Amino acid sequence: MSSIAAISALFSADKWSQNGEILDEYALALNGSRCRPAAIVWPENDDDLLALVNAANQHHFSLHILARGKNWGYGTAQAPSADHVIVNLMRMDKVLEVNEQDAYVRIQPGVTQAQLYEAVVDSEAALQLDITAAGNHTSVVGNVLERGFGHTNYSDRFGNVLSMRVLLPTGKIIETGMGAYQHSVAKHVYPYGIGPVIQGLFSQSNLGIVLEMTLALQPTPEFTLNVLILCQSDADAPKVVSEMARLKQLGIVTSGVHTASMARAMGAQARKVAGSWVITTTLSGPKSIAKARYREMKKALKTVVPNLRFIGLTQRRWNVIQWLNGYLKSPHIEGLKIVWDLKQGVPTDDAIKTLLDDPSAHSQMKTEEFPAYFRWVCAVTSSKTQDIERMLDICRPLFAKFGYEDRYTMTNVTERAVVLIANIRYEKTPASVARAREFYKELDHALLEQGFCPYRSGSGLFEDVRQFIDPNHLELLGRLKYAVDPNQILSPGKYWSGSLQSQPVVEARETCVD
Amino acid sequence: MSSIAAISALFSADKWSQNGEILDEYALALNGSRCRPAAIVWPENDDDLLALVNAANQHHFSLHILARGKNWGYGTAQAPSADHVIVNLMRMDKVLEVNEQDAYVRIQPGVTQAQLYEAVVDSEAALQLDITAAGNHTSVVGNVLERGFGHTNYSDRFGNVLSMRVLLPTGKIIETGMGAYQHSVAKHVYPYGIGPVIQGLFSQSNLGIVLEMTLALQPTPEFTLNVLILCQSDADAPKVVSEMARLKQLGIVTSGVHTASMARAMGAQARKVAGSWVITTTLSGPKSIAKARYREMKKALKTVVPNLRFIGLTQRRWNVIQWLNGYLKSPHIEGLKIVWDLKQGVPTDDAIKTLLDDPSAHSQMKTEEFPAYFRWVCAVTSSKTQDIERMLDICRPLFAKFGYEDRYTMTNVTERAVVLIANIRYEKTPASVARAREFYKELDHALLEQGFCPYRSGSGLFEDVRQFIDPNHLELLGRLKYAVDPNQILSPGKYWSGSLQSQPVVEARETCVD
Ligand SMILES: Cc1cc2nc3c(=O)[nH]c(=O)nc-3n(C[C@H](O)[C@H](O)[C@H](O)COP(=O)(O)OP(=O)(O)OC[C@H]3O[C@@H](n4cnc5c(N)ncnc54)[C@H](O)[C@@H]3O)c2cc1C
Ligand SMILES: Cc1cc2nc3c(=O)[nH]c(=O)nc-3n(C[C@H](O)[C@H](O)[C@H](O)COP(=O)(O)OP(=O)(O)OC[C@H]3O[C@@H](n4cnc5c(N)ncnc54)[C@H](O)[C@@H]3O)c2cc1C
Repeated sequence: MSSIAAISALFSADKWSQNGEILDEYALALNGSRCRPAAIVWPENDDDLLALVNAANQHHFSLHILARGKNWGYGTAQAPSADHVIVNLMRMDKVLEVNEQDAYVRIQPGVTQAQLYEAVVDSEAALQLDITAAGNHTSVVGNVLERGFGHTNYSDRFGNVLSMRVLLPTGKIIETGMGAYQHSVAKHVYPYGIGPVIQGLFSQSNLGIVLEMTLALQPTPEFTLNVLILCQSDADAPKVVSEMARLKQLGIVTSGVHTASMARAMGAQARKVAGSWVITTTLSGPKSIAKARYREMKKALKTVVPNLRFIGLTQRRWNVIQWLNGYLKSPHIEGLKIVWDLKQGVPTDDAIKTLLDDPSAHSQMKTEEFPAYFRWVCAVTSSKTQDIERMLDICRPLFAKFGYEDRYTMTNVTERAVVLIANIRYEKTPASVARAREFYKELDHALLEQGFCPYRSGSGLFEDVRQFIDPNHLELLGRLKYAVDPNQILSPGKYWSGSLQSQPVVEARETCVD
Repeated sequence: MSSIAAISALFSADKWSQNGEILDEYALALNGSRCRPAAIVWPENDDDLLALVNAANQHHFSLHILARGKNWGYGTAQAPSADHVIVNLMRMDKVLEVNEQDAYVRIQPGVTQAQLYEAVVDSEAALQLDITAAGNHTSVVGNVLERGFGHTNYSDRFGNVLSMRVLLPTGKIIETGMGAYQHSVAKHVYPYGIGPVIQGLFSQSNLGIVLEMTLALQPTPEFTLNVLILCQSDADAPKVVSEMARLKQLGIVTSGVHTASMARAMGAQARKVAGSWVITTTLSGPKSIAKARYREMKKALKTVVPNLRFIGLTQRRWNVIQWLNGYLKSPHIEGLKIVWDLKQGVPTDDAIKTLLDDPSAHSQMKTEEFPAYFRWVCAVTSSKTQDIERMLDICRPLFAKFGYEDRYTMTNVTERAVVLIANIRYEKTPASVARAREFYKELDHALLEQGFCPYRSGSGLFEDVRQFIDPNHLELLGRLKYAVDPNQILSPGKYWSGSLQSQPVVEARETCVD
């Protein structure tokens, strides 16, 4: 039976579609590439999903799972190859629990940042979100599974997953963490569980469908100081990033630290602002501790780069500024608002407007409605100043050669690692798309060759990276994939899993045109 | 070919043994049970190990890996069942790198706590270890893989693994983290890597042999305040532990927090000390921050339990006390030294002496030389006061019924989870062993039935827990095991991996007599 016949036998017409326009919508990624699926299904509950998984096993078709499908700049809603059945979990969007005492939420995969924010506010629990800049209508679960990072003390978002309920491709449901036991008092609070830690298998992968995620939330701090640091010279930025790693190791800085080139932080207004990089972080907790940490941080950073300028924003100061800006309408203050909201865990669509340089952009747009195309390039480095410099030295000439604006952020994602995120925005013409493709192939390649490797990939991008992955690692991924998904029904080829040479591939597939 | 024939063909006599006395030594666990292996091998390098793995695959025998084989109280050096070839990696004991700038070490599996401590001291790197109480001659890697926990800010020891080099049972070597790439600048600093996070698969498992581990170390703090809190009533202890979870969530307390019943903390001297529980934690970092945190912690705890007594020990005060004790020779001060050393990351054998109530005990003893037998019972709970109370209420009557001393620690292992570790020490007579077995079967069972489940198991203990593990989870473990270890050469049955009903088991095995 074909996938379409199987699906139409299972679901009423409101739960699936093979309408050409809708397929086109899902086919288009924000980088301008296309990869057409066979159908779209919108399951409403676990049973719908289970029926679909069983059908895929029986009739040998492939599913590709979306939380909200807004994986912009990394493949958007595309599957790793054409003719997948896209499974959009947007209707499974319940916030199942807001637990103030244990400081966590349990959510379904379709829950958006805005929905979770509202649910927490409505519950009156004193908990704060850690969010991404991707906007109101992007998911929490999809982003966490891709190991995106945020801005608060809980910026290592995947590291804050406490447990997951997962539908395996075999149709069995398991729980990670203490859910390995049939019944545990600590079910949602101890992620290691017993025996091998399997949680990581379901991030950046095609090994299971996450039905439910328990995510730790930070108790709302008594006091928050959001800090902006202006760094006037390109030469100094790597030193600041490196010193921030040390300050994180020392526990002086505990939140994500983002160091953005001005073009990245402020969009078109960049050139009007003094300084070439802006560093943001947040120091929160009891006031006495946060202030002591601020003093230590300032002292240490000034030793490394004396002429940094520090702006410490408390809620009180921010209220005054916003009130004043009711009259001034300064675009700089509006730019600041993005940072403020991110650090407070309040989702907004402001970053989309800035990154796409279009005040009407928002996170509910269809991909074709975006004013421009867009792609991210990411790379992980150590926090050594020389490594960071080398990494930027690879980027700069290529950005110049292709004439794109230098838009970078460097994030201290852990105490020791720094992730570079560069982005380009380009016109929606075939020539611009081709040029952009040429650019990011060249940049990705140059970075990878020098050992600055992406922390994340995406549909349409896997093949470019494959040659840099260790062959033994690829073999292991293949073994794991065939063990967990013997019929290869879940996104075969995603993150290089499921194309083990020595194993039969279920069906030859057209790779996405990119 | 038999395992013995294969091994003797591979190795010279100094690298392996089937001497009866040696086999007996490895057969005996510290709980008094016996499980006899077929032979012992001491590989000296990766090649030795690889040859052994290849032989095991070819000739179908099973290997059980030890770092140092001192997994006391959890199965010691026993394999999950009899007739395994025990592979003791104690000769692979090189500290490969001490990296001060990125604050990590790279070590081989045989490295002991004392060896690592010395190597770091010798290197003059300003780095501090996080250690366990198991003593000088226990390994770092074996304990970290079992997810043991320590006492400093890096007490989540497994969470501080940055990368591992692993020999798979297929004979292929992989690296976790950024080692998924053939070449990455961030190889040892970003544990997530790309694609599924596989690191967790190699902890509490039988899926690979760790050849090398990169472990994050904390930069030596500028200032350390080791805090002891005396809690006089049994009824108050759960409240303190619960409040400590909240303080950890708020970032006020960042180190492991241990709450020990006096019998546990002080051994036989317990009854002479005021108070029934002692809570220990460490506040470290820049002085102003550590002091601000101490004030906040004290304030919060006193609100919950007004009559707690706080002792804040700085290095300076400690020096004075130790000087004074040169004259006083107070056993209480000597008891304190254990705590001090643990909090400073200095390994010693003092805890073994205390726990076994024998001043001549040390961590190089053979199991048969121990003055008594010993077992741990562990259980994970949420940090809710009621849950902690319920858990203790299960233990107390059973300890009383069997006449063992109440020896518990409760550790805030994360911001939300608490692990109870109870222990019993008993005479080396068959009657005592039988009675102890009856006791801990009953206690384990009572705890598990109420959802207080172990965070860790061990050889001889798996079968008791199996019925409480979710069947779908068992099936998944089986699938993973057969994918990674098709011939079941690595400790089949360990942590319930490798006995998938629907798959052929390589060889029927005698379970350990316990
Ligand atoms: C302006 C702008 C700003 C952005 N800012 C950020 C940022 O700050 N941080 C960041 O990380 N990204 C950012 N992004 C990138 C991207 O938009 C986000 O990562 C977004 O959250 C991903 O889309 P989604 O949440 O709808 O996830 P989806 O696209 O639905 O899913 C993402 C991935 O997870 C998988 N997946 C989803 N649900 C499940 C499930 N239930 N089970 C198994 N697998 C599943 C999918 O197959 C896919 O591979 C930004 C993009 C733009 C354009
Ligand atoms: C007095 C006393 C105090 C103790 N204090 C503590 C404590 O504070 N914290 C704590 O956690 N425990 C404690 N223990 C328990 C135990 O002694 C320690 O956990 C000890 O570190 C384990 O022994 P080991 O390091 O020699 O590891 P091993 O016994 O060699 O190994 C432990 C486990 O890891 C596996 N393993 C080892 N090396 C590898 C490898 N290279 N690849 C794959 N798998 C491998 C082994 O198969 C085994 O399952 C204590 C015990 C006593 C008696």
